Amino acid sequence: MNIAELNLLPLPASVNLREGKFRLDHTFSLTITGTPHDRIYGAATRFLRRLDGRTGLFFAQGFLTPLTIPATASFKIEVQKSGEINLHMEESYHLSVDIGGINLSAPSDIGAIRGLETLLQLLEADEEGWFFPGVTIDDKPRFPWRGLLIDVARHFLPVEKIKQNIDGLAAVKMNVLHFHLTDDQGFRIETECFPKLHEWGSDGFYYTQIQIKEIVQYAADRGIRVVPEIGVPSHATAILTAYPEYASAPGPYSIERKAGIMNPTLDPTREETYEFLEKLFTEVSALFPDEYFHIGGDENEGKQWDANPDIQRFMQENGIADNAALQTWFNRRLLKILTGLGKKMMGWDEILQPDLPKDAVIHSWRGKESLYEAAKNGYNCVLSNGYYIDLALPASSHYPNDPLPADQDLPAETAARILGGEATMWSELVTPLTIDSRIWPRTAAIAERLWSSGTVTDIQDMYRRLDEMDLRLEELGLQHNTARDVIMRSLCRGKDITPLKTLVDVIEPMKIYTRNPEGELYRMFSPFTLLADAARPDAKVARLFREAVVSYLREPHTRDRMRIMDHLRMWKSNHELLLPLIRQNPALAEAEEISRNLSKIASIGLTAMEGSIRDRAAGVSVFEEARKQGGRTELQVVDAIEQLVLNLPV
Amino acid sequence: MNIAELNLLPLPASVNLREGKFRLDHTFSLTITGTPHDRIYGAATRFLRRLDGRTGLFFAQGFLTPLTIPATASFKIEVQKSGEINLHMEESYHLSVDIGGINLSAPSDIGAIRGLETLLQLLEADEEGWFFPGVTIDDKPRFPWRGLLIDVARHFLPVEKIKQNIDGLAAVKMNVLHFHLTDDQGFRIETECFPKLHEWGSDGFYYTQIQIKEIVQYAADRGIRVVPEIGVPSHATAILTAYPEYASAPGPYSIERKAGIMNPTLDPTREETYEFLEKLFTEVSALFPDEYFHIGGDENEGKQWDANPDIQRFMQENGIADNAALQTWFNRRLLKILTGLGKKMMGWDEILQPDLPKDAVIHSWRGKESLYEAAKNGYNCVLSNGYYIDLALPASSHYPNDPLPADQDLPAETAARILGGEATMWSELVTPLTIDSRIWPRTAAIAERLWSSGTVTDIQDMYRRLDEMDLRLEELGLQHNTARDVIMRSLCRGKDITPLKTLVDVIEPMKIYTRNPEGELYRMFSPFTLLADAARPDAKVARLFREAVVSYLREPHTRDRMRIMDHLRMWKSNHELLLPLIRQNPALAEAEEISRNLSKIASIGLTAMEGSIRDRAAGVSVFEEARKQGGRTELQVVDAIEQLVLNLPV
Repeated sequence: MNIAELNLLPLPASVNLREGKFRLDHTFSLTITGTPHDRIYGAATRFLRRLDGRTGLFFAQGFLTPLTIPATASFKIEVQKSGEINLHMEESYHLSVDIGGINLSAPSDIGAIRGLETLLQLLEADEEGWFFPGVTIDDKPRFPWRGLLIDVARHFLPVEKIKQNIDGLAAVKMNVLHFHLTDDQGFRIETECFPKLHEWGSDGFYYTQIQIKEIVQYAADRGIRVVPEIGVPSHATAILTAYPEYASAPGPYSIERKAGIMNPTLDPTREETYEFLEKLFTEVSALFPDEYFHIGGDENEGKQWDANPDIQRFMQENGIADNAALQTWFNRRLLKILTGLGKKMMGWDEILQPDLPKDAVIHSWRGKESLYEAAKNGYNCVLSNGYYIDLALPASSHYPNDPLPADQDLPAETAARILGGEATMWSELVTPLTIDSRIWPRTAAIAERLWSSGTVTDIQDMYRRLDEMDLRLEELGLQHNTARDVIMRSLCRGKDITPLKTLVDVIEPMKIYTRNPEGELYRMFSPFTLLADAARPDAKVARLFREAVVSYLREPHTRDRMRIMDHLRMWKSNHELLLPLIRQNPALAEAEEISRNLSKIASIGLTAMEGSIRDRAAGVSVFEEARKQGGRTELQVVDAIEQLVLNLPV
Repeated sequence: MNIAELNLLPLPASVNLREGKFRLDHTFSLTITGTPHDRIYGAATRFLRRLDGRTGLFFAQGFLTPLTIPATASFKIEVQKSGEINLHMEESYHLSVDIGGINLSAPSDIGAIRGLETLLQLLEADEEGWFFPGVTIDDKPRFPWRGLLIDVARHFLPVEKIKQNIDGLAAVKMNVLHFHLTDDQGFRIETECFPKLHEWGSDGFYYTQIQIKEIVQYAADRGIRVVPEIGVPSHATAILTAYPEYASAPGPYSIERKAGIMNPTLDPTREETYEFLEKLFTEVSALFPDEYFHIGGDENEGKQWDANPDIQRFMQENGIADNAALQTWFNRRLLKILTGLGKKMMGWDEILQPDLPKDAVIHSWRGKESLYEAAKNGYNCVLSNGYYIDLALPASSHYPNDPLPADQDLPAETAARILGGEATMWSELVTPLTIDSRIWPRTAAIAERLWSSGTVTDIQDMYRRLDEMDLRLEELGLQHNTARDVIMRSLCRGKDITPLKTLVDVIEPMKIYTRNPEGELYRMFSPFTLLADAARPDAKVARLFREAVVSYLREPHTRDRMRIMDHLRMWKSNHELLLPLIRQNPALAEAEEISRNLSKIASIGLTAMEGSIRDRAAGVSVFEEARKQGGRTELQVVDAIEQLVLNLPV
């Protein structure tokens, strides 16, 4: 066993291999000592079931409870105290494995839960059977705030889907679910004080308060905080659909179906608005034990404010210079409300204005400049810029994005205000079917950035471990791999999906905001069951092909040559195989052009590989054509094949 | 278009094709007139989304509500009255499609909901695009009770999984979810009167009352009744774990982890037992608006009764001849309780004893004899014998099982007491991951038996339509196809799964009760992530191969010959491809023998097909060997290949 072969993700702070292997059989069992929170028993039971599920050993040990825990066992978990689910949660652990047994010790059960995930990742097999390698691990996170934002406003998600993703977060040692509950497109939480909010603002798709409590409990059982977001004063169309009287322009309003930046904005100049928000925040914040409460605050263009003479007069009378200052006025009121409720206010970049009290937490989505500016000005802050997983960029683009890169020169005190980061799963273009494939496995790379040392930066090795994690996340019920097959089977109407899969393996959904220009192409109720939904970010087949091309152009090894040739041949002939499938399903027509282009460039690539004479000039237009979108997706091997053509000797 | 090409399942009572096609584009919309229950708006919205999901046309019409319904549309739904969700629900509908539009009319919204499923099944495409063929359909069910029992006691299922299966039921026009909530292995419903039941009897896996209401509402929105079952006096270990004082033998008891027939039984001789049950039934029955309440009553072997002198004395004093009579004594008390609660009592076969009042409904699991006996004796009854989908038998074995076959000679009045049937998904050997693959698509064949005319009996055509339905059920989130891939990917540890899939395609889990001998091999917490769990009943590849062999032996067509040869060659060489995967995962070791056997018999089959000389006697033992189980699965092509060997000319 070699450390470089281990599949640990995120990489622990310290790993040392030692002699011997601990071998598993059906008598494997665990015991728990110390004074942990009761959540450890459920976590240990789940650990046993997952380990048994992988190994098929039929462990005799069943459900663990304080009453059924054995006096002795080969795996000993020792916990000093009950963990608290908050920003300062104690997550460190010490894990040692040798031939005689396993010891996991941690100051709190939360650390032990992190350690159980590490142990699961250590599982290996050889000709004698399953084992854990001898190892000593000391581990704790680099940043205390390691989160995933899930937007349930644009597309609602069933409770079960949220729970599966909480399990995914726990598997990669993340500890915050940022629950984006409201937006122009929906208000997703039941309220008793203002029932019209969920009745009129959700199309019937909202979480009951009991369901919210269930989710918060489920997260806490896994050592994960849940931070709610109620976005104001903008992103508020759903709120104003129910209560237009709090808007800055006369209603009526209706739930937004498109994506983009919308005008409906709360009126910050009227006392009634604050009375409304105080009641609302009081009720909602009581459902979330976490200390932090997110009020959104982004993308307020102030058009309704500009157009409202009452608001203009108010600004004049109170010496409010501009809309940014008016929003700070608004935020100061909110801060007072939230402070009164025992909460710390968090908001997006835009809330950072000269007069903002220092208790607010800045959530940076626009760039690291604002992050550092906030930290320098004494604010705690969290980074999301660079972690926008909805943009369909590869893990390799998020992975190097360090909230505190080695070359920053912030004083320690300032740096300490940078609490961590959050991946953001905005859901304009995802549904319960596809969302897992947009979150996973890429979020695991971000999880490593936030947990592991800043010196862990090898992208190649990250991908090696990410591929393994991809598989392991399936065991939690996540559908990042299966959804693609479901969509392809439907598109192929029961016929063999192989030719479609060959195409889908090398395309990705259009990136950044290009897939949905101006937010107009897709409505929230549009079909997300088509080519672009089957395609996934960070297409693995394309990535491996690109790597082979780079390697081959550096040095023409036979192995790379064969891999390249095999792919080019397959792609060249694939279009003819795919055409009959396209012909039988009008919904697949959008794949025709891009499939033909793949075939064409593969053919040019083959000619180049075979060293035949070719017309380089003619090739240019073919490659250009092949870069165009088809079905809101883009081919991911065009540059690589063009590089072959341009750089191989004729 | 030909009627025989349509993919309707269950087949409607009357289908007539007519001229013309109704073509779909993005302007497609629907309107609703009449006085339906509001559930129709949600149903129509879901219809639109599913249709849009398949066609990719980006319909402009979004969420339908009474307020947003257009005055006119190309698809008109007309409903006379609000449907009632009970045994006598009105499910008939009339559907007509022509070039100018679609009309769906029904006496109740429930009938309209059935018609929407039919319309979705009619969708076709040609070179011009998507269309519905011109058609006139008049439809209504043959039996009023068409159900699926889901056992959530042996393995608990999340709410979402129940909902997906309710959607599946609706897609095949079934109308009863029989919710088997308690058994020896778990008590799965929160009670306020006896909280220890769910606290001590469920390992924490139970439905809250709010979740029960959510499920009942979800079902009602789809025209589906939910019938609860609280099993007594036997199958009661979980109840007695919480309240041993009501047992017929001293406790303590603990939740059962094995499968089989257990001894713990309620004491029917003590008033306290009835006080307990009256309170329990009062609370539980209030959660289920349905008129029927199932009390189980099966598999009471009476061992605790025989051994208890107080019970024996009681029987003597009250002239109770035997345990069957004592159970009837018990049932009479329950019937009184349930009648008082406005419920009709339903129970398994065993409750049918001479003194049983006629208000009880008999649920026949042991055979059609008891069904007819019950009907002749004036009891309403429901058939499950022959519909035990947990036994891993093919759809073709359930499909001919008619509650009222043409050759029965029951008087009409007696026949009318046979209300229908229920497929039974006992869950000893299934988990949330695998249960869909045990329910679907086979249950659709049972759905047809209960909805369509008894003259619809063509098994070949049933399978043709079942294959299409298999695909369509995926659109509801059901995981009957994807779970297999998840398990295989895990077993192959990230390597290409093709060789394992080749094997899994021709094996099935062991049938009837052979997979889990004496209920001892598996515990409820055992791993269900192995070979037998990847395998599915009614393996399609094996079925098609067997059909090809039968056809080829009848007449040696080249097409069949090629299909047979291709498969035999693939299977022959597969073992060598699978071995490296088996070597890297100890959990796959159980596949080695059966994989080798497949390779061996394929090799013998190939020799036979090639007309070479062979030793028939030597072959016999190889085929015998190949019939043995491996990883609790069995090869499904052994007989077919042996038939080739025995019947082909040398």
